[in-house]
Amino acid sequence: MTDVATMTPTDARRRFRDGHVAPTTGWCDGWTQANLLAVPEALAWDFLLFAQRNPKPCPVLDVLDAGETAGPLLDGDIRTDVPRYRVYVDGELVDEPTDVTRWWQADLVSFLVGCSFTFEAALREESVPVRHIEQGTNVPMYRTSVRCRAAGAVSGPLVVSMRPVPADLVAAAVRVTSRYPSVHGAPVHVGDPDALGIADLDRPDFGDVVRLEPGDVPVFWACGVTPQAAVMESRPSLAIAHAPGHMLVTDARNSAYQVP
Amino acid sequence: MTDVATMTPTDARRRFRDGHVAPTTGWCDGWTQANLLAVPEALAWDFLLFAQRNPKPCPVLDVLDAGETAGPLLDGDIRTDVPRYRVYVDGELVDEPTDVTRWWQADLVSFLVGCSFTFEAALREESVPVRHIEQGTNVPMYRTSVRCRAAGAVSGPLVVSMRPVPADLVAAAVRVTSRYPSVHGAPVHVGDPDALGIADLDRPDFGDVVRLEPGDVPVFWACGVTPQAAVMESRPSLAIAHAPGHMLVTDARNSAYQVP
Repeated sequence: MTDVATMTPTDARRRFRDGHVAPTTGWCDGWTQANLLAVPEALAWDFLLFAQRNPKPCPVLDVLDAGETAGPLLDGDIRTDVPRYRVYVDGELVDEPTDVTRWWQADLVSFLVGCSFTFEAALREESVPVRHIEQGTNVPMYRTSVRCRAAGAVSGPLVVSMRPVPADLVAAAVRVTSRYPSVHGAPVHVGDPDALGIADLDRPDFGDVVRLEPGDVPVFWACGVTPQAAVMESRPSLAIAHAPGHMLVTDARNSAYQVP
Repeated sequence: MTDVATMTPTDARRRFRDGHVAPTTGWCDGWTQANLLAVPEALAWDFLLFAQRNPKPCPVLDVLDAGETAGPLLDGDIRTDVPRYRVYVDGELVDEPTDVTRWWQADLVSFLVGCSFTFEAALREESVPVRHIEQGTNVPMYRTSVRCRAAGAVSGPLVVSMRPVPADLVAAAVRVTSRYPSVHGAPVHVGDPDALGIADLDRPDFGDVVRLEPGDVPVFWACGVTPQAAVMESRPSLAIAHAPGHMLVTDARNSAYQVP
């Protein structure tokens, strides 16, 4: 079996297009992964403004024109190349298909939003362990009590991903991820789940439970599932997103989003 | 006379509101300066998407709701607090007032876009001279032959600002400005005006001529006048902007936009 870490984005997308389903953490080291959100054109302004006003959870990497299914970041088809999707009608999750061709509308505007999986290879290169990869699971994600800044009809809570980090490597994790502001950048919070309104780390709202090793501290990064939480609250007529942790692997190199 | 470098944003905006006219280079060290562009709501999507697709020249710091004249970045009034404005009707420059109250419309959406004046204090702190400040002039700005990525009806060329930098300090200038991606970040080009389609450095399209000292190399940064060049090309019914180099001084600290 091919090691998914060394796979090219083209090959990964082909695998997913052919029906393979898996979280994309650990796939295609060095290539940027993206969250997907597609909404009808009439709602696109509010969602783009929401993203602009909340750049930590919603760093926009690209916006496709209405009806477009490919773009500079992907030589493929956003309707088929994500491992699993979520389809929301009036804010309710109605389908989790591996292909959204039958849900597609010509007026859908697609947003590609940065994903923290992008910096996980850099963390491991600097000897910061990534526990959910070690444990073979998806990253855990939580809704928080922190409110995003609203835009028009769009509002919602901040969603975070959590990675347990050994206490003596927290500073390194901050330093490494700070270099990637376009894919959530530095942590928004270190160490105290209560302060984010997270009652129980073992009950993530999205993704899987991850086990803390002795001496690990929970470190929280802003998460690109935040727009989906806004969909659930703001209830647009239709929204198509990736399933949390099941990202679009793009043709952009991580280095394109790294700052010194 | 108060040293403009140590003035607070509130005091600077009051000076400009009271009719003082000057380029803002060198004003309010440590505080973020912004380009202004206000367009009718019906055109706002295309302009926001244009900015998103061209983040080097158009790093959006904030977007005000239609009709709003203040926001989190300024406790003031964007119609009066900029030293000088430019008003465009159908893409033609029709007025350069110091107050745009009479041009204001309730449907105008204002974009605040990062400005490279923001990092000039950091350059000087690292002993990189800023020649136009030394020479008491505005920075020179040039239209280039580089095309921005279009969005809907909005298209135009990249505009750059130019600062002469001693050859042995170019690397320092790159390093320092790289830390400020939200205010144009690292240079887009170093050393060869021809490659940008700039025929004569002594004929800037905006701002003033600056004299190169012996051993200086021309260094080019993406410039927030780019949206104005797009206005001239795309000809919206109305657009209100700052006069080049005459920026809005905001209440945001530069450090808020610095990356490690």
